[in-house]
Amino acid sequence: MILTVTLNTALDLTYGVPELVPHASHRVSEMSERPGGKGLNVARVLSALGHRTVVTGFAGGATGAVLRELLADLSPQEPTDPGTGSPDAPHAPEPGTAPAPTAPAPVTDALVTVAGNTRRTIAVVDRATGDTTQLNEPGPLVTADEWAALLGRYEELLAGADAVALCGSLPPGIHVGAYAELVRSARTAGVPVLLDTSGEPLRRGIAARPDLIKPNADELAQLTGSREPMRATRDARRRGAHGVIASLGPDGMLAVTPDGIWQAAPPARVPGNPTGAGDSAVAGLLSGLVEGLSWPDRLRRAVALSTATVLSPTAGDFDRAAYEELLPRVGIEEHAPAAR
Amino acid sequence: MILTVTLNTALDLTYGVPELVPHASHRVSEMSERPGGKGLNVARVLSALGHRTVVTGFAGGATGAVLRELLADLSPQEPTDPGTGSPDAPHAPEPGTAPAPTAPAPVTDALVTVAGNTRRTIAVVDRATGDTTQLNEPGPLVTADEWAALLGRYEELLAGADAVALCGSLPPGIHVGAYAELVRSARTAGVPVLLDTSGEPLRRGIAARPDLIKPNADELAQLTGSREPMRATRDARRRGAHGVIASLGPDGMLAVTPDGIWQAAPPARVPGNPTGAGDSAVAGLLSGLVEGLSWPDRLRRAVALSTATVLSPTAGDFDRAAYEELLPRVGIEEHAPAAR
Repeated sequence: MILTVTLNTALDLTYGVPELVPHASHRVSEMSERPGGKGLNVARVLSALGHRTVVTGFAGGATGAVLRELLADLSPQEPTDPGTGSPDAPHAPEPGTAPAPTAPAPVTDALVTVAGNTRRTIAVVDRATGDTTQLNEPGPLVTADEWAALLGRYEELLAGADAVALCGSLPPGIHVGAYAELVRSARTAGVPVLLDTSGEPLRRGIAARPDLIKPNADELAQLTGSREPMRATRDARRRGAHGVIASLGPDGMLAVTPDGIWQAAPPARVPGNPTGAGDSAVAGLLSGLVEGLSWPDRLRRAVALSTATVLSPTAGDFDRAAYEELLPRVGIEEHAPAAR
Repeated sequence: MILTVTLNTALDLTYGVPELVPHASHRVSEMSERPGGKGLNVARVLSALGHRTVVTGFAGGATGAVLRELLADLSPQEPTDPGTGSPDAPHAPEPGTAPAPTAPAPVTDALVTVAGNTRRTIAVVDRATGDTTQLNEPGPLVTADEWAALLGRYEELLAGADAVALCGSLPPGIHVGAYAELVRSARTAGVPVLLDTSGEPLRRGIAARPDLIKPNADELAQLTGSREPMRATRDARRRGAHGVIASLGPDGMLAVTPDGIWQAAPPARVPGNPTGAGDSAVAGLLSGLVEGLSWPDRLRRAVALSTATVLSPTAGDFDRAAYEELLPRVGIEEHAPAAR
């Protein structure tokens, strides 16, 4: 199974309004709510790809209870058909022909209950333009005892994990070196670990030598001071990450790894909502790692999934038909060893 | 006791942000949540004035459960000190010297549980300017059985009520003549009834001859087609309301009643947030009616309470010191009978 850690889970609300006008009153015409926070989004995509996933992190209060109910609804009620094979078993298909298995797999709730209230995030979508205004609550104050409970739960879960993703912001009360601590535990347990956060938690986490980080241009620039992708990505690797997959937004991804350097790009720029595209990329990278795919195939999958997420009418979901159509059309360019 | 009916209760969230910028992402720096919907706001003020209040209407789902918890927190844990006297007993103090009793009285939850989720409202406050952007969910779809349960509960509660306020918008599923039905029941039971709503529910409700309505300028104009206060207020009375108390915003109130016509104005215009000022005025009018105050004293109280609500740093609460200071300074002008 793949483990995702979301320390600052969220109940994600989406409000549709005809147009957001500051200082006016708005009647919300459409609304939806779903479990959120980056690691939960990653788990949703992994589940759709057929990978059994366990989510941990914190949840509490009335919003935490709603989040956990919605999370339970995500999982298929019946175990997946054994005839579809074991998606966790490594295999190495031909490049460009390897969509992940399609029977959804369960997402198991291993969240640690906290006294505080899980935060809400509100995405206000202008129906006319599709533009989104985001309001994010800060999250509950997590106590030292609750953090200790999370560490215990995490160690237990690592024992059964094929890979782990550490995702998103830290809630109030959690020390800035928290991800570094979780990276070290994963490395001690021999579980490949991907870190997807930003700012000081990313800087500290990298020094603990995660297998992968997946920063976007802003996160890389904040970390390294450079907006030149190759320079910034290499700098990030020197800081301790074994592999750095830099998101170049609509231009795809740049991967600087111990095995080589690749650039992967979608066949064309696509219009749509980039919300959740990064989380889909993380799911693509981790599922590819667990399945033993080559770097080019992992990157194809990550780029096809994130592009299919931008194309989806529902923010954060991916359009499966678009994904399967895009997968063989993602362009991969290997940089000559001299360029490393 | 005073009964308030809120068919579309709400969990009211207030988010503080440095500045609301459309299409940007915002970290909420301060937040609060409290039970809302006009009738619940009226009950909160009545409780602060020492009047026992029972609230009914609908609540459901996870947000409904939070609303009811917060509502329970509103009530004093101990019964009020019998030494403070009976605030429900009519008495007629000198004009200008009659602040209501100050020991808070309990608010009793008699809400009817529905299957749908109580709506949230979100007030996003720009900390720089104090301006508020409002987002209102539509509310749960109420079924015919749930409406029938509300009618039964309402009839029972009317038997013990000294006055009733019918407040706010209708949730989806409730027929537009719902308030007219509730007005007729109150009149049959001999309980004075105040209707505070807008649009078609107000138009239908007035035809059932409520004792009082308390429209603002926009609601009056929508009802009568006129923005001239005296003309519009008299027209509203001709449509069936026994008394019409028109809110003139910062200029106070115009009361056209069977006993006379009065205009009441605060001593000065005040800066602040008008949210909830109308609900405080309803609480002032109803408490004054139950206490047997004269029209001028009821209007003094309503204007002082609504002005003290605008002045309060917390939207919807009233500043008690300001209220007591303002009360004797509200100006009352009686129109000559010829002007009726």
